Amino acid sequence: MNIGIDMMGGDFAPLEAVKGLQTYLSTSSSPANLFCIGNEVELKMLLAHHRVVRAEIIVVHAPEVIGMHEHATKALKDKQRSSIAIGFHMLASGKVDAFISAGNTGAMLVGALYSIKAISGVHRPAIASIVPKVNGSTGILLDVGLNADCKPENLNQFALLGSLYAKDVFGIENPKVGLLNVGEEEGKGNVLTQAAYPLLKDNPAINFIGNVEGRDLFLDKADVMVCEGFTGNIILKMAESLYEAAKQRNISDAFLHRFNYENVGGTPVLGVAKPVVIGHGISNANAFSNMINLAEKMVTSNICGNIIEQFKS
Amino acid sequence: MNIGIDMMGGDFAPLEAVKGLQTYLSTSSSPANLFCIGNEVELKMLLAHHRVVRAEIIVVHAPEVIGMHEHATKALKDKQRSSIAIGFHMLASGKVDAFISAGNTGAMLVGALYSIKAISGVHRPAIASIVPKVNGSTGILLDVGLNADCKPENLNQFALLGSLYAKDVFGIENPKVGLLNVGEEEGKGNVLTQAAYPLLKDNPAINFIGNVEGRDLFLDKADVMVCEGFTGNIILKMAESLYEAAKQRNISDAFLHRFNYENVGGTPVLGVAKPVVIGHGISNANAFSNMINLAEKMVTSNICGNIIEQFKS
Repeated sequence: MNIGIDMMGGDFAPLEAVKGLQTYLSTSSSPANLFCIGNEVELKMLLAHHRVVRAEIIVVHAPEVIGMHEHATKALKDKQRSSIAIGFHMLASGKVDAFISAGNTGAMLVGALYSIKAISGVHRPAIASIVPKVNGSTGILLDVGLNADCKPENLNQFALLGSLYAKDVFGIENPKVGLLNVGEEEGKGNVLTQAAYPLLKDNPAINFIGNVEGRDLFLDKADVMVCEGFTGNIILKMAESLYEAAKQRNISDAFLHRFNYENVGGTPVLGVAKPVVIGHGISNANAFSNMINLAEKMVTSNICGNIIEQFKS
Repeated sequence: MNIGIDMMGGDFAPLEAVKGLQTYLSTSSSPANLFCIGNEVELKMLLAHHRVVRAEIIVVHAPEVIGMHEHATKALKDKQRSSIAIGFHMLASGKVDAFISAGNTGAMLVGALYSIKAISGVHRPAIASIVPKVNGSTGILLDVGLNADCKPENLNQFALLGSLYAKDVFGIENPKVGLLNVGEEEGKGNVLTQAAYPLLKDNPAINFIGNVEGRDLFLDKADVMVCEGFTGNIILKMAESLYEAAKQRNISDAFLHRFNYENVGGTPVLGVAKPVVIGHGISNANAFSNMINLAEKMVTSNICGNIIEQFKS
């Protein structure tokens, strides 16, 4: 397996990316080949300095970097030799099986949508966040930011994308799907969720259990929770900030600890044809290592192939 | 001052309501007159049993009760002698200056909108939640449930309603108003927030500071945060459930403790002509006592008069 990694993306790159390789290699029994894309001189020096010299590591030179705040479409077009552009080129041409970056989120999305492309039948790809459950299990929330405005059918598709993600990557068989809403009964909600409910109910490809409310997010009610990207993004950032607050206040608790973004490291772009993982700008070594693990799971489970299969018809 | 209290509303009524009176009376230096609406025989027995016999307490007999899950409009129409119907009648006729209930939320809202009515110029009244800030201060989030779908002008009005609530009840001078959104810059967001931003920016009656994200909710960025009632309700219930989880896990922390709904006890219906406070179904004595305090502050600050004044033009 070949995984492409943008070594220049994120606030602490390339140092934390290099340390992430170290963590990954020291914990994986049969590591993938890691195509490390970035400034060759800088990377080789850092890799040597941190003694990350392994046959699995292949440095791919990228003389340009897309900054965290550059305009996504423009930067991708202008900087064809940037680590993100080269990563997508390698993914599109099959040189790598998955591509990871903690860099410019917009550029990663534009790259995923334009160079890898949405799977036929998927109207709107989505990004997903894990949701720690009080009982120790893990839920999935999507969309958490790609689609601020959605149509009912988008939510219905997110339900299927999320179900496949829950099954293939988190091993949740027949995941329970809930529609995030402001009431329990069918008919409750805003115009969007009222219209989405019957679509989800009639979708034979998912295990729909009805509406879930804000209070159910952390309970064992639904494994996959769907919403438009506006609400999802606010929930995600609010949860991250609560974790930060708890950390600052020296609250040590296993449940709250699971809100740490590092544990998963990144989100896949669900609904594009090949595995793409986008990391947090503040990604550290642990997050990079977990992003590689996530990409690996996406490749071995063939989640993209399964999505292609499910959306055929 | 005369405050009407629905003694029969809430999962633990009338016992917790009676205990709430006790708490309120034992902590208030010049208590209001409390018109306790409910089953006279039951209430008098309970009040005597708990030794809550004071000149300030006036029992008002209501032979009927609206159940927690009854259809709001139908129940209010059919049960004219219920504690909620009588409470609104007393409020409308001026016998009490404020009305409190932890009963059927729908019936409280219908009663507020139909017997008290929205203030002229207010398109959509809203309910508000307090948001504890990490620095110890308090923010306001609205709408948290009345309006699942909103127009841009609704959010603009919530900004003013929330500002007056923050000032009159929480003593926050010139409260900073933020538009809850998925990005910091103007132009970010969904269709609704993109259209609302310029309205808020051009509103001379508020102190608009721009967009706030999910991660800013608990920070000292904005005192008043506005959103439609869908996102607001999910945030509110999610925060409540996190508090519950923390409590169950024996996490003792001053910041997390402030997520306890009891501390404020209820939400006003902002934008109706007289003070109406709606409590949580699970309200206990502490919550009832704090609802009375909230109603008292709403009366003394003349928040409804101030809203009427601000919406004149």
